[in-house]
Amino acid sequence: MKRARLVGQFRVDHPERFRLAARDPADTGGLAPDKAAFKAMLAEDVERLAELQTRLYAEHRWAVLVLLQGADTAGKDGVITHVMGGVNPQGCEVHAFKAPSEDELAHDFLWRAVKRLPRRGHIGLFNRSYYEEVLVVRVHPEMLERQSLPPRLAGKDIWDQRFKSIRAFERHLARNGILVLKFFLHVSKEEQRRRLLDRLEEPAKRWKFDRGDIAERKLWDQYMAAYEDMIRATSRPQAPWYVVPADHKPFARLVVARAIVEALERLKPDYPQVTGAALKELRKVRNALLAERPGGERS
Amino acid sequence: MKRARLVGQFRVDHPERFRLAARDPADTGGLAPDKAAFKAMLAEDVERLAELQTRLYAEHRWAVLVLLQGADTAGKDGVITHVMGGVNPQGCEVHAFKAPSEDELAHDFLWRAVKRLPRRGHIGLFNRSYYEEVLVVRVHPEMLERQSLPPRLAGKDIWDQRFKSIRAFERHLARNGILVLKFFLHVSKEEQRRRLLDRLEEPAKRWKFDRGDIAERKLWDQYMAAYEDMIRATSRPQAPWYVVPADHKPFARLVVARAIVEALERLKPDYPQVTGAALKELRKVRNALLAERPGGERS
Repeated sequence: MKRARLVGQFRVDHPERFRLAARDPADTGGLAPDKAAFKAMLAEDVERLAELQTRLYAEHRWAVLVLLQGADTAGKDGVITHVMGGVNPQGCEVHAFKAPSEDELAHDFLWRAVKRLPRRGHIGLFNRSYYEEVLVVRVHPEMLERQSLPPRLAGKDIWDQRFKSIRAFERHLARNGILVLKFFLHVSKEEQRRRLLDRLEEPAKRWKFDRGDIAERKLWDQYMAAYEDMIRATSRPQAPWYVVPADHKPFARLVVARAIVEALERLKPDYPQVTGAALKELRKVRNALLAERPGGERS
Repeated sequence: MKRARLVGQFRVDHPERFRLAARDPADTGGLAPDKAAFKAMLAEDVERLAELQTRLYAEHRWAVLVLLQGADTAGKDGVITHVMGGVNPQGCEVHAFKAPSEDELAHDFLWRAVKRLPRRGHIGLFNRSYYEEVLVVRVHPEMLERQSLPPRLAGKDIWDQRFKSIRAFERHLARNGILVLKFFLHVSKEEQRRRLLDRLEEPAKRWKFDRGDIAERKLWDQYMAAYEDMIRATSRPQAPWYVVPADHKPFARLVVARAIVEALERLKPDYPQVTGAALKELRKVRNALLAERPGGERS
């Protein structure tokens, strides 16, 4: 299946019609759920991604920002390892957004994310992002309290106000050559149960278990409502959401890799061309190097 | 004259009708040009500003961002010294924007300013700002080149695109409790000539003379056109421009001080009220302190 077609199914092009419940977390996009086949396809995409990123870096015009959102155990860390693992780390930064610091809480809600935006030629990956501000903060109003907003600005319409700010921010990024790609890893409640049990049972996974995950799981429905609202409000052509079925890990990784490759190919990044006087200069330097005798200059 | 009336004359409330040429840089807003009187009024405002800033700091809800723009010699440094000099530096940061670094050039044009936004409870002052991106960069297209934008995003409409980004950014700040006040110090070309001569002639001012100022002076008309366009495009109720006549320095400082005081008063910052259980706790602590015998506890 062509990259664009596989990926297109999961991009939210009509946010006004989007319903999360209509999406199947176990979907494999019309492909047979064959782990080995998905891995082989992923390997190809990872290689292509590495090449595209080298061009992006050399060209130094565009930047790419990849956002990963999803419930605990949805597979965000696995995507980072398997999709971005093949990319030259010199042109790629991963940032995980944890609980905000006191200094971050004292600024506007986009501030700490803006500080970590990628440079031109780089791919920045946010493991969670400013979207937590309309997810976890929405589900836990006490977190909003801690942001010390003037009361008149923290009314009921604050989520709509934040959506406005986010849309405007992403339009600004688009105007300035920062391509934004947003992935929601959509795992089912049952699959999360299995993965949490795994974490409790397998010694090598126990370190990942966090008591807080169980508390958040109890708020499953509130989270799903917040995800749906977020996707409807902020999936736009300049910064689309991809709702990636995440019950099959290798398939989820494949979708993310394909979507990034496909978007990068549309940018057509290329090595800067050296022409005219600069090319002449290079030829001169080359000739000088050729004329040097091995073992140093002897007169 | 009431603060609001003095200041209101210089706030651009109808940007669509704004013409820079219709403004007189030597205007003193209906007051007799009396240096001593201006200084006395300023001293009052500076005192009031210090008090308001203490409340702002204690309340920890709002932040204030003051932007200063203006040609060389317009008096930006003097405003900072004389208006902000009385404010507790613990709650006030001044940042001067010089030529961007290589890292700053590799990010979107708002990035370096966002990083320096004030925290809640603080006043941030930008000596020059992201508006340079539609001023000096507009007058010197080679500076835009250095920003390495993808060519398709650096077309003729880039200034309109930047105005859109700036308006959206300032709306975001307003929604998040960051009050933005923008001052254009409007000096006449003749007054600039006098001030540049001063810098050349007075030994104590020579260090401020920069050969580059003369080059920029030759582009006076282009700059004035860019200022006018900027003010028309970005003076909005949530982040108004004040066009401050700057040929009389003490008057310019007075206008800036009054405008900040007036805007802060509208926020009505106040000390957090301690009530209920917290107040009871304070009473208990107080009693314990009173019961302590001077010279340490003796049993």
